[in-house]
Amino acid sequence: MADTPTFVRDRLAAIEAAGLLRQPPTIEATGPVTGRVGGRDATLFCGNDYLALRTDPRIAQAAADAAEAHGGGAGSSRLIAGSLAVHEELEAEIADWLGTAAALVFPSGYQANLAMLQALAGPDDQIVSDALNHASLIDGCRLSRATVAVVPHKDRRAAERALSDGAFAERFLVGEGLYSMDGDRGKVKDWMWAVHNTGAHLLVDEAHALGVLGPAGAGVAAERGAGHLPLARVGTFGKALGAAGAAIATDAATRDLLVNAGRTYIFTTGLAPAAAGAALAGIRIARSAEGDERRARLAGHARRIWNGLLDAGWQVPGDEDTPIKPAIVGPPEEAMALHHRLLEAGLYAMAIRPPTVPEGTCRIRITLSAAHSDDDIDRLLGAMGSPDTVPRP
Amino acid sequence: MADTPTFVRDRLAAIEAAGLLRQPPTIEATGPVTGRVGGRDATLFCGNDYLALRTDPRIAQAAADAAEAHGGGAGSSRLIAGSLAVHEELEAEIADWLGTAAALVFPSGYQANLAMLQALAGPDDQIVSDALNHASLIDGCRLSRATVAVVPHKDRRAAERALSDGAFAERFLVGEGLYSMDGDRGKVKDWMWAVHNTGAHLLVDEAHALGVLGPAGAGVAAERGAGHLPLARVGTFGKALGAAGAAIATDAATRDLLVNAGRTYIFTTGLAPAAAGAALAGIRIARSAEGDERRARLAGHARRIWNGLLDAGWQVPGDEDTPIKPAIVGPPEEAMALHHRLLEAGLYAMAIRPPTVPEGTCRIRITLSAAHSDDDIDRLLGAMGSPDTVPRP
Repeated sequence: MADTPTFVRDRLAAIEAAGLLRQPPTIEATGPVTGRVGGRDATLFCGNDYLALRTDPRIAQAAADAAEAHGGGAGSSRLIAGSLAVHEELEAEIADWLGTAAALVFPSGYQANLAMLQALAGPDDQIVSDALNHASLIDGCRLSRATVAVVPHKDRRAAERALSDGAFAERFLVGEGLYSMDGDRGKVKDWMWAVHNTGAHLLVDEAHALGVLGPAGAGVAAERGAGHLPLARVGTFGKALGAAGAAIATDAATRDLLVNAGRTYIFTTGLAPAAAGAALAGIRIARSAEGDERRARLAGHARRIWNGLLDAGWQVPGDEDTPIKPAIVGPPEEAMALHHRLLEAGLYAMAIRPPTVPEGTCRIRITLSAAHSDDDIDRLLGAMGSPDTVPRP
Repeated sequence: MADTPTFVRDRLAAIEAAGLLRQPPTIEATGPVTGRVGGRDATLFCGNDYLALRTDPRIAQAAADAAEAHGGGAGSSRLIAGSLAVHEELEAEIADWLGTAAALVFPSGYQANLAMLQALAGPDDQIVSDALNHASLIDGCRLSRATVAVVPHKDRRAAERALSDGAFAERFLVGEGLYSMDGDRGKVKDWMWAVHNTGAHLLVDEAHALGVLGPAGAGVAAERGAGHLPLARVGTFGKALGAAGAAIATDAATRDLLVNAGRTYIFTTGLAPAAAGAALAGIRIARSAEGDERRARLAGHARRIWNGLLDAGWQVPGDEDTPIKPAIVGPPEEAMALHHRLLEAGLYAMAIRPPTVPEGTCRIRITLSAAHSDDDIDRLLGAMGSPDTVPRP
């Protein structure tokens, strides 16, 4: 067995010295929002399973049926021999849901975002990117070789200024429907005006919004009556839909361009049939009246915890009705101490530290599920206490 | 619905004018190596399902069981709440198989390769990359911000010269176990000497080799008695193992560094339980005596078609016993014409064109499965004819 190189030990030691060393916790689920963590039973406030579909037996059944009908994997890239009927059915469902002419399925949201930016933008182009955009969008900007301008979070004037600056073949503005660490919506109407005034193209990552916000869960652009406006929207199946994988919803010609120029589409095995089948089942529930009920319950929980945290004196970024509720703590040690206090009370919410969030903004990130009860929320509010009671290690 | 921008139409028209426009074919599988393509029954020579496990009922059952036990998706990133018992079981199995202390699972091989290069190499480092490396390795080089030197395919002296040139904090040599478009093994022993002589670290992508080559299918580095040498090896589950996803096999500390610095690990939803369960079942078959039998049948097919193609006058890159058999045609139109002639004979093998292979080296890429019969191989050889009989459109 090879020895660990010195540089690996040195870099790990530096991460540890900064108090930032992480290991994945193993959570043995015992229900949609309960599990055993480190030998202790806890109510979970940490996943992205907003509609509580992940452990729904209908989703598992759809996964099983698709694996039986289409195999354990796609067997090759889509362009070679891995394009299956279940991929096409899923793409038609996504396009119908989001009101686009076409959609293209990817093995993950990360790969969808990489392809969107790398295939559409090139060295002669400009991408204006919101400062809080996800890592996959940042990496997509890099891989595109376009000129990238990062603008302050949701600052329309900065975006419009950047888009008006310099001579580029094409200009793109990229943002998110629902920001995953602050829980706030992207300002789609502002972006709409910015691209209208500058001739740029709008790209929106709806990863955390799909299934959660908008009419029938169609996302924030649809909620703002602007679903027709983005050149492309990315939606993921591994969050509210309880499955895995992702899609880009767009017009037919742009889909063709993604097929022919998207490196993370061309050079990767197609989405596993089980994931595609599970995603289809998840979407059909999310679009139904049952989906509306789940969204209403989720928004009620969001308002309950928003009001409770603000009343206790917490700084809570984001929008009142979204299922991502960060309570800002500050230093990493204090965020970890509060995380442990919650765990002792049988409540599991993650402390989020750099590089996921900027230095000095460590937080307890509470995420909500339609399967939580009002009592779960109230117990969490009780254990959070107030910023004055955070343990100082 | 948004109008298609002019730049999209222009870029598509340019691709079409070059004869390179592609659309995923839809193949309705009717058996492990048979399917309906465009309304016609065909024997398939195009997937990466080398051991014919993709449609094995044991794999589908394992996918179904894992979805039922662990949910339709992982529900969040591994570091937040998406690390499941099935991920850990799979990582232990991979490490045991490849003889490493640890392994780390990813949603796709593309993401594993990105993380390996981006997390291990940085701006002060150098990556020496084989000219035929996969798109995901090329993109990983870019994302690492390291200085990248591309060296001619399997040229040990060029690699060693590049690794001896300049002052870098760390140097990495990256290659593949089995090259997917030429069907030849990477020269692991040469690379071993190159890194030994220069103090560099070796990284090997075993995507197409895992399950296919080496003792118990453990890949080309293991086959060369050098499994202990690479700092990291990538294996994928979507090819010979019949599932989806991928892993990096490495030492425990390097795994910890990947966990803490690998952006495509940190910022992505964990591998779907169904895929992890299917991969586990696939590995257990691949490692067993049944796996040995399937590999022997596969190598026999490879030799049969290698000899037949060479006898007919084809230029066939690669190694005699590997299941990837490219027959070089040259111009894209002729490769497409031969592809269509095969299809008329009920045989489906892909014409591979740029950007997947270099200009002027378009080819019919034949891939073999343990489920092919000798008769399938002979029918394909008959329909391939000789280079003199390729239709000139």
